[in-house]
Amino acid sequence: MPTIHVHGAGQMPQMQHKTKKQVKKVRCRVPASTANIGPGFDAFSMALEEPHLELTVERVEGGEGVMVDVYGPYSHRVPTDPQRNAAAKALDRLIGISGSGVGLRVVIEASIPVAKGLGSSGAEAAGAVVAGERILEMNLNEGERITIASSAEPGSHADNVVASLLGGFNVIDNSPEGLTYLNIKPPEHIGLVILVPTFEKKSTDEARKILTTSPTLVEYSQALSRASLISAAMALGRMDLLLKLIPLDPFIERARANAGLYGAGYRWEHLLEDKKKLLTEYGVALCISGSGPSRLLVYDVRRGLEEVERAVEYLSERIERLAGGLERIIYTKPTTYGARIIDEH
Amino acid sequence: MPTIHVHGAGQMPQMQHKTKKQVKKVRCRVPASTANIGPGFDAFSMALEEPHLELTVERVEGGEGVMVDVYGPYSHRVPTDPQRNAAAKALDRLIGISGSGVGLRVVIEASIPVAKGLGSSGAEAAGAVVAGERILEMNLNEGERITIASSAEPGSHADNVVASLLGGFNVIDNSPEGLTYLNIKPPEHIGLVILVPTFEKKSTDEARKILTTSPTLVEYSQALSRASLISAAMALGRMDLLLKLIPLDPFIERARANAGLYGAGYRWEHLLEDKKKLLTEYGVALCISGSGPSRLLVYDVRRGLEEVERAVEYLSERIERLAGGLERIIYTKPTTYGARIIDEH
Repeated sequence: MPTIHVHGAGQMPQMQHKTKKQVKKVRCRVPASTANIGPGFDAFSMALEEPHLELTVERVEGGEGVMVDVYGPYSHRVPTDPQRNAAAKALDRLIGISGSGVGLRVVIEASIPVAKGLGSSGAEAAGAVVAGERILEMNLNEGERITIASSAEPGSHADNVVASLLGGFNVIDNSPEGLTYLNIKPPEHIGLVILVPTFEKKSTDEARKILTTSPTLVEYSQALSRASLISAAMALGRMDLLLKLIPLDPFIERARANAGLYGAGYRWEHLLEDKKKLLTEYGVALCISGSGPSRLLVYDVRRGLEEVERAVEYLSERIERLAGGLERIIYTKPTTYGARIIDEH
Repeated sequence: MPTIHVHGAGQMPQMQHKTKKQVKKVRCRVPASTANIGPGFDAFSMALEEPHLELTVERVEGGEGVMVDVYGPYSHRVPTDPQRNAAAKALDRLIGISGSGVGLRVVIEASIPVAKGLGSSGAEAAGAVVAGERILEMNLNEGERITIASSAEPGSHADNVVASLLGGFNVIDNSPEGLTYLNIKPPEHIGLVILVPTFEKKSTDEARKILTTSPTLVEYSQALSRASLISAAMALGRMDLLLKLIPLDPFIERARANAGLYGAGYRWEHLLEDKKKLLTEYGVALCISGSGPSRLLVYDVRRGLEEVERAVEYLSERIERLAGGLERIIYTKPTTYGARIIDEH
């Protein structure tokens, strides 16, 4: 009979290891994530209660290497080639590190929108590491899990990966000096809405290539002061500061908006106008989720749903009219759970 | 008989106003401050237990305008011209706002090293606002105190002013959208040492003009991620992260070091070498205080004084040899007290 465990990636399998019973099949639940969150370019990420994906990793007796199966609503957008699939790449790294020549099959239920700025490949890599570690009876620490999952992610960006592994709000510094990260429990009153436009970005790397101009010294200072206010406000539960500062990215969103990354007809002037309107009229903070094109709304749940619903209605119409159409609206909130095993046998 | 009050700038004179007794002379104690604190360019400031200054503001019967007297160890460096003295400028602003045509005399005990990156003019302005507000029976809020004191500070930079007014560790965003600030109680285990070189910088504005090149996108991202980690670490008491990240300014310190602002013979390579040595050998974080030239050492008091004393010995020798001489060494710590009235009658 399968046993069910619910625990975070941080305090994983030590207890179960004592039984020495070999686990053959592990199912993982992994949260999607939002990154940047206003001024926090390449630094902030937050795990989302919804959407999430589930994946199963299974030992294949007599097999070798990694096989990939994908199903679910976004399966047509997830590569099944093990050289290009984030989960398979993470498992391949794990097999290499463990030195065991086993075969693994990963089955991904692709239920996070792909190429929309919600960290779907980071979630796949995170889930694969947590499940694969259990199957291969490894004993990784948190930093190792992050490094392996990040290396499987296209572009090796740790932000989404850290959120999908650890849950919560995260600040990451991914420098030559080494990776530093801090996991923070977000204020309990944060509500989130994600508006997913119809069109897809090409890739995060493409979105990065747009950024050809350098920030000015004023933008540099504004970015670091506002990001610092946001991270401390997360730690101290200061919703007022979060709502005020999350819309105030001084550089990245403008450059990407003007390059058409948020919709060909939705430029910086439109984003700026919408940010102001949503904050002043509805008390809702607007920013872009990751490198886009999804929009992230942040609000205080104590104010009730009425205002945020009106904000969503307004922004939906804007996206339909200026940004080529709206695919999905997701009412969600942060989760403190990272990738976790929900079934194993 | 004089009464003695000790309170922060935040919760000031409401109680005493009830007595309606006119106060003629107010003495204020004001902490010096350190700004930037590694990657926090124009964003971070922290009030220091020492050094501090004291100033007295006195109503001059039948007088008009502001007179300035300065005494104490750094009096030769503080202008007595009311047009150029930060305390006098702040008092002049207060008189204008209050609409009372009174005369005021301010006597400054100049005991904060001047032009060394320790916020001496910001402290003067902060003390003048707190004392002047009491004399003129005004009822300012915290934001008004900050705005008035900042406008009297050369360059109108709010960082040092906020620390001298509020105490503690502060994150400031001084944007066209308005001033936002967050006051954080620093971890109780922070110890600080300030090494004050003999030479003086020309002015903060001069130090700012050095910064003619733009930061790269990588430096932009590193600055905001590291600053965000520091501000959250301050809020959460994570000494380990503070010591690791405070030395890692990605842009400003390098530019200023290479322009000779920290000593003609003390370049970026020397600063970088000293940062690494102090952290790895003594567990001490090194950065520049404000725009320099003072050096700020941050350490964990639980590790005892022996290592930090060896770090100070090493760095003192380096400053003597490469940066033109050492004037003063100040062992101190953060204070949660801002400018406060210590005597009035």
